[in-house]
Amino acid sequence: MGKIAESTVRRLSVYLRLLEEFAAQGKGTVSSHELAGQGHTTPAQVRKDLSFFGSFGKRGLGYPVPELIAQLRDILGLDRPYRVAVIGAGKIGRALVGYQGFVSRGFHIVLLYDNDLDKVGVSWDGLQVRDERDIEADLAREPVDIAIVATPACAAQALVDRIVTTGIKAILNFAPVEVSHPDGVVVKNVNMALELETLSYALRNR
Amino acid sequence: MGKIAESTVRRLSVYLRLLEEFAAQGKGTVSSHELAGQGHTTPAQVRKDLSFFGSFGKRGLGYPVPELIAQLRDILGLDRPYRVAVIGAGKIGRALVGYQGFVSRGFHIVLLYDNDLDKVGVSWDGLQVRDERDIEADLAREPVDIAIVATPACAAQALVDRIVTTGIKAILNFAPVEVSHPDGVVVKNVNMALELETLSYALRNR
Repeated sequence: MGKIAESTVRRLSVYLRLLEEFAAQGKGTVSSHELAGQGHTTPAQVRKDLSFFGSFGKRGLGYPVPELIAQLRDILGLDRPYRVAVIGAGKIGRALVGYQGFVSRGFHIVLLYDNDLDKVGVSWDGLQVRDERDIEADLAREPVDIAIVATPACAAQALVDRIVTTGIKAILNFAPVEVSHPDGVVVKNVNMALELETLSYALRNR
Repeated sequence: MGKIAESTVRRLSVYLRLLEEFAAQGKGTVSSHELAGQGHTTPAQVRKDLSFFGSFGKRGLGYPVPELIAQLRDILGLDRPYRVAVIGAGKIGRALVGYQGFVSRGFHIVLLYDNDLDKVGVSWDGLQVRDERDIEADLAREPVDIAIVATPACAAQALVDRIVTTGIKAILNFAPVEVSHPDGVVVKNVNMALELETLSYALRNR
């Protein structure tokens, strides 16, 4: 399987969510029309995306819900749990640690760091804030799969440089700055203002 | 200008960020290679995206930075400020109200609501939490452009139904549920677990 565009991967995630809702409603099969949802994409795009991964609905019968859920979870790497470290115990870190949607997808935040010694030792939802200086030593003993960087922009690059030395291959970066990283490490930037810009664009171009 | 795919709009936002960094460094022109950044996209895609909006770099000279910034801000609707209401003063609401990146893009959170009377009246960064029951009355007096829904899933649909009656045309939904909405209202769903799934996909398919 070649490299899949990120936009395709995002659509697969959305299909999986819809399929899980259909499963909860007891539906055994769904059509590409139902998976296209409320205008998120088109039935033709659904069929194209799923055929690309070797899944074919039957004309007039649709896709089998449980099988397609299992297949998408497998494709998305969701058939196993992930250990996640959050670096930065500020407001964004606080929102992430409390986010219900992570655990239900198998993303477990097991380590939380800050450089503010007033925060170190404080417990959030049972998770104690650790001293950022201990990152390398901790991760050597208790490796994680994914690091989430939720620090101010000025601190992000130095932290990324440090965590990649521990062997972490996947980073979600909330700091509003582009960070450089070695080949073989995947960095995904999340920028909340960018989400609002898709709305300002829509308002401008109605 | 026809309907542009959201993935294109997102790339335009990223180009704008890069251009602003180049402007801060005093650069007068940039190449499509520089705008493609660290592997976010390809120079060919940059040229295609920008030519679509009528902007052409000169071969060997590149794109003029200040002009392209102005043009992208105009396309993205960022040449004016937006008034934003946040509904839900939980952990995600807290992160949003403190998010520095919003104000710098012209997104001003001016109203904040919760249904928990213990929170109503409390001030966050100078913004007082208001009673959710007053949404319609407040927005009639003080209209906003964009509403951000940051409530639990079970509360989101009823709130969306209420806020669209006030004339709001753009909603950013952080609640982990699909909400239905009238035609003519743009709803953008943000799902933080979905961001992590692009990483689990990448880890699986390395």
